[in-house]
Amino acid sequence: MLKVGIIGVGSMGTQHFLRLMNKINGAVVTAVSDVNEAHAKEVIAPYPSVRYIPDPVELIHDPEVDAIVIVSIDSTHEEYCLEAIKCQKYIFCEKPLSATAAGAKKVVDAEIAGGKRLIQMGFNRRFDPSYEELKALVVSGRLGEPLVAHCAHRNANYPAQYDDVVAVTGTAIHEIDTMAWLVGDYFTKAQVIFPKRSRHSKNENLHDPMIIILTTSSGMVINCEIWVNCQYAYDIRCEVLCEDGTATLPRPSRVDVCTAQQHFTGMTTDGLGYFAEAYDREFQAWADACNADTYCAGAASAWDGYCAAVTTDACLKSQKSGAVEEIPLTESPDFYK
Amino acid sequence: MLKVGIIGVGSMGTQHFLRLMNKINGAVVTAVSDVNEAHAKEVIAPYPSVRYIPDPVELIHDPEVDAIVIVSIDSTHEEYCLEAIKCQKYIFCEKPLSATAAGAKKVVDAEIAGGKRLIQMGFNRRFDPSYEELKALVVSGRLGEPLVAHCAHRNANYPAQYDDVVAVTGTAIHEIDTMAWLVGDYFTKAQVIFPKRSRHSKNENLHDPMIIILTTSSGMVINCEIWVNCQYAYDIRCEVLCEDGTATLPRPSRVDVCTAQQHFTGMTTDGLGYFAEAYDREFQAWADACNADTYCAGAASAWDGYCAAVTTDACLKSQKSGAVEEIPLTESPDFYK
Amino acid sequence: MLKVGIIGVGSMGTQHFLRLMNKINGAVVTAVSDVNEAHAKEVIAPYPSVRYIPDPVELIHDPEVDAIVIVSIDSTHEEYCLEAIKCQKYIFCEKPLSATAAGAKKVVDAEIAGGKRLIQMGFNRRFDPSYEELKALVVSGRLGEPLVAHCAHRNANYPAQYDDVVAVTGTAIHEIDTMAWLVGDYFTKAQVIFPKRSRHSKNENLHDPMIIILTTSSGMVINCEIWVNCQYAYDIRCEVLCEDGTATLPRPSRVDVCTAQQHFTGMTTDGLGYFAEAYDREFQAWADACNADTYCAGAASAWDGYCAAVTTDACLKSQKSGAVEEIPLTESPDFYK
Amino acid sequence: MLKVGIIGVGSMGTQHFLRLMNKINGAVVTAVSDVNEAHAKEVIAPYPSVRYIPDPVELIHDPEVDAIVIVSIDSTHEEYCLEAIKCQKYIFCEKPLSATAAGAKKVVDAEIAGGKRLIQMGFNRRFDPSYEELKALVVSGRLGEPLVAHCAHRNANYPAQYDDVVAVTGTAIHEIDTMAWLVGDYFTKAQVIFPKRSRHSKNENLHDPMIIILTTSSGMVINCEIWVNCQYAYDIRCEVLCEDGTATLPRPSRVDVCTAQQHFTGMTTDGLGYFAEAYDREFQAWADACNADTYCAGAASAWDGYCAAVTTDACLKSQKSGAVEEIPLTESPDFYK
Repeated sequence: MLKVGIIGVGSMGTQHFLRLMNKINGAVVTAVSDVNEAHAKEVIAPYPSVRYIPDPVELIHDPEVDAIVIVSIDSTHEEYCLEAIKCQKYIFCEKPLSATAAGAKKVVDAEIAGGKRLIQMGFNRRFDPSYEELKALVVSGRLGEPLVAHCAHRNANYPAQYDDVVAVTGTAIHEIDTMAWLVGDYFTKAQVIFPKRSRHSKNENLHDPMIIILTTSSGMVINCEIWVNCQYAYDIRCEVLCEDGTATLPRPSRVDVCTAQQHFTGMTTDGLGYFAEAYDREFQAWADACNADTYCAGAASAWDGYCAAVTTDACLKSQKSGAVEEIPLTESPDFYK
Repeated sequence: MLKVGIIGVGSMGTQHFLRLMNKINGAVVTAVSDVNEAHAKEVIAPYPSVRYIPDPVELIHDPEVDAIVIVSIDSTHEEYCLEAIKCQKYIFCEKPLSATAAGAKKVVDAEIAGGKRLIQMGFNRRFDPSYEELKALVVSGRLGEPLVAHCAHRNANYPAQYDDVVAVTGTAIHEIDTMAWLVGDYFTKAQVIFPKRSRHSKNENLHDPMIIILTTSSGMVINCEIWVNCQYAYDIRCEVLCEDGTATLPRPSRVDVCTAQQHFTGMTTDGLGYFAEAYDREFQAWADACNADTYCAGAASAWDGYCAAVTTDACLKSQKSGAVEEIPLTESPDFYK
Repeated sequence: MLKVGIIGVGSMGTQHFLRLMNKINGAVVTAVSDVNEAHAKEVIAPYPSVRYIPDPVELIHDPEVDAIVIVSIDSTHEEYCLEAIKCQKYIFCEKPLSATAAGAKKVVDAEIAGGKRLIQMGFNRRFDPSYEELKALVVSGRLGEPLVAHCAHRNANYPAQYDDVVAVTGTAIHEIDTMAWLVGDYFTKAQVIFPKRSRHSKNENLHDPMIIILTTSSGMVINCEIWVNCQYAYDIRCEVLCEDGTATLPRPSRVDVCTAQQHFTGMTTDGLGYFAEAYDREFQAWADACNADTYCAGAASAWDGYCAAVTTDACLKSQKSGAVEEIPLTESPDFYK
Repeated sequence: MLKVGIIGVGSMGTQHFLRLMNKINGAVVTAVSDVNEAHAKEVIAPYPSVRYIPDPVELIHDPEVDAIVIVSIDSTHEEYCLEAIKCQKYIFCEKPLSATAAGAKKVVDAEIAGGKRLIQMGFNRRFDPSYEELKALVVSGRLGEPLVAHCAHRNANYPAQYDDVVAVTGTAIHEIDTMAWLVGDYFTKAQVIFPKRSRHSKNENLHDPMIIILTTSSGMVINCEIWVNCQYAYDIRCEVLCEDGTATLPRPSRVDVCTAQQHFTGMTTDGLGYFAEAYDREFQAWADACNADTYCAGAASAWDGYCAAVTTDACLKSQKSGAVEEIPLTESPDFYK
């Protein structure tokens, strides 16, 4: 039974806490840390066996904690990863690995220096059954070489503090990791294009929607739309164009209704709910791997987290220049193969 | 240029008139008859070359009329068909051929006696591209023998005078002809089942929806739902189960919309509009055949009209008995092959 | 941690065993029984903590077994249920509750006599998210009263021993429980109709496909197709016609592919895999309920198992008579409300 | 009865000839011209009333020709348009209006100088019912302002002479006119992006697929994929992102088939057949307008043809520069409003 400590029980952290307590086989949360003590204590109240530890570093070192889940704010991920690596404890780190590419590199270096693969990044789509089927088909070669992918990441709406930077580091980063994983390649160029802004964009520093054009080392183009105030629902699209055909991510299964001269299916605005099964499978795979004292081969590594950070840096640069920006990446080190 | 006389310019008759004047190549309407003189004159007003002839029989005999379109009330079809057969003029007759199976038999006998195939029944679905594709696939044998079909005929709503009889003779008759044509077989048994009535059924003599189970001479079962107050739209369904797979009639192509947490396509309540393309193709095929002095091989013949009448008679009988009723049909005479 | 004993580790039993060991939170299998000792030992080999107990009755009484999962052959369910009721242990019983309606009644009576709700029937579709959404919509009344449902249960193919009886007691029984649950009603009449037989039916005592027409106490008609050699895939359909619209069960989400002049999605022949998520949720709900020392309110009870048995009896009778047969059911006793 | 002369009876010209003879009401072809005399005579052989006139200019001037259909090779369109304008005869001109933007401007100027709107460009999608529904929805404002459109134009395959130039002037030009019409705006910027080339591209001067990014005067971005060797079918996609939702062009209605573990619909490789209904409606609208001695308001004008030419010029420039190129367009002159 894996004893887990969670750092951060905001909305996503609370979901992860409940998931680990009630759904995941072979894991149990023993300790929780959060800057908001009152809230944290409320979350764990129904579970008397779970302790509240105010200091995250203390939680990381706690002997009743075998593995760490990091869901605190982005700027803290790097520090907690480095601390947990010191203890050689397993880490589940929500994206990003660090707020900067340089910080991500430090974590990668520390993990390599430690000699043991400890970090699993929370890129949950790698565990979504639809993305898995899509990747399996593309990788099989049945449709020939992949040439282009059209992706869209749409959220119903976001608060006013959301801007062009977060649109890349918090949202586009999912497309970036997913597509690198799906086509088994890394990115070499990025360009950001700003269309007319939606009136629903609440921040003058948010160009919404925006289009990001990524090129891989083999020349494949990822044509990616980011639209976080689309109003209508949370909606994720992906079509991969291969030489002999195309493969498209399906929508979730929902009841079809005919009424009032419409044929419709409902959609959700709940992004966490949309990928709920992927989250469950991601954590089960992590718990299983930790219990077997190894890492989960299909999951995103610290290196993947680093690659994502370098790519988002180039996107941010292109937002300012409007030009195509280079992405200084290479193939992954042997340690991560 | 085929000179056409139309008997009946109610809503469907007016559509056929306009279709022949403005869309059909090689045909022109020269005369129109209708019990409502004022309305008929209004319909033809923009077309000065079209004459109004009060007496339908006179219209049939008129030398400037080569071919007759019968869209008058059901009870008159038999008489006008017989009259036009006397003149050996081509006839396009909206269903039914006659109000009774016995009357339909008289028309068939007269046509055979005349020695020339003159009548095309207005079963328009035989000219619908989707039904054509469905039939072609079933007939090809690619999916093996057809075993069962699930059909549904749904109208948004119907006025209070609509009852169990018209539900069969006016609505189910389309499913009957279409399925006999589609599977190339004729019916031997019928059973009508009455589920709970919709509160939208405006007539206590209308069990809406109802289910009609038809069996063909080879044992195939047609499981047919008739629902004329479904409220939501005009909707026609057909799935054919064959030994190695199933084939399903598609919905019409309509724009997909995502908005307000719904993914939807619009539907129409307009039954005449739903099959507009089928009507156009049906009349073009009829005009082409008449201009070539022959009959249209794929269209419904007077014999098909007779078969439909015998089948609807059995359905009406089963509505009263609740039991399985026999349908006294045989293969078609050589004259109609 | 709920300690579970499983009776029967055939293909379905093995899946349940693995599910409980690896996916379900709060439950662990401690003992397994099976007539095939060698096979059972192979299944449990990777799990040294699991004991093999040859005698199912001994397993039921074992002090290290808190709750029983019955996945043995149909004829044994009644006996094991009665035995576990004696011990007042929780029971998860795969359908049917008994091979006969009379036997099912005995189990119901024993459970009532014991004074505690112990049995959860393995009707897994009640835990399928799509069926849940469908039921929620129908029950909400948003579409008005339900009037008719069209259901289809299709398996790719079945071995030669499969006959008309099993088509009802092993297959149609799922539609029966699901629809009674979905519309919150019970059945009063049944009629079975035999269409032309598929050449793929391997048993002359199997009319495949067959159509079962069920009527509920309120007059709703369930028009249900059972087709166990459809060749193409495992496929479950359900459309509910309500007064103001219809609601249709969706297909599973699968990647869309365009290639070789086709637009397609793959389908599975694996019936157990099709509802895998429903099985997981069903067992998690059962384990959670047992751990809370109560029963799962949404799951099928022994009474539901009894109702299914009475209904299948009527279907078997109609297979012979061809007529509409009465189903002697009433509303459920207070004990099961 | 409109008397039509056709210049060019290659594959598309022959389809137009047959359409005008057999489907279009109120028009008849009286004369045909083509560089391949033998072929032209073969095409008209079944229609003795149609004359072959070797010289296109003679055909334009022929007194038995009221209106001209130009389907000859691209480089000749400008000359024949100018000649027909001299005669003040109505013109149906397949795209492009001219091989160059400068040539297109000459035709526009001549038409304006003549004082009468004579030219209808053969941009058939404006008559496609699905595009019409899409435009009506976008224009209605129900979904708010349009912000982005994702378009794809895919052909199964093209011969070796097809290169980057024709991909723009022969293929992308359809997207260009359609989108300008659909959103009621004109383009100001173009950028072409070359992804990895498909191995099915038969010409080293063809980057297939390619992506064209167009910006409109209001800032809307048209993200357009051109892929002419996609192998799988002829496939046209369009999704318009508006502030409150998205609208997507549907696929054509095709029978759904379930067989061999697949759920599929057939697709066509036949581009002319794909839009057959649009062609029919386009020519009927043209014949109706000519017979009423006016122009068809919804159709593409010579100005639209000019706009398309200026836009394709910018795309060709960007193919070489890789950069964003300006498109020197303004709102249309009053003559074309």
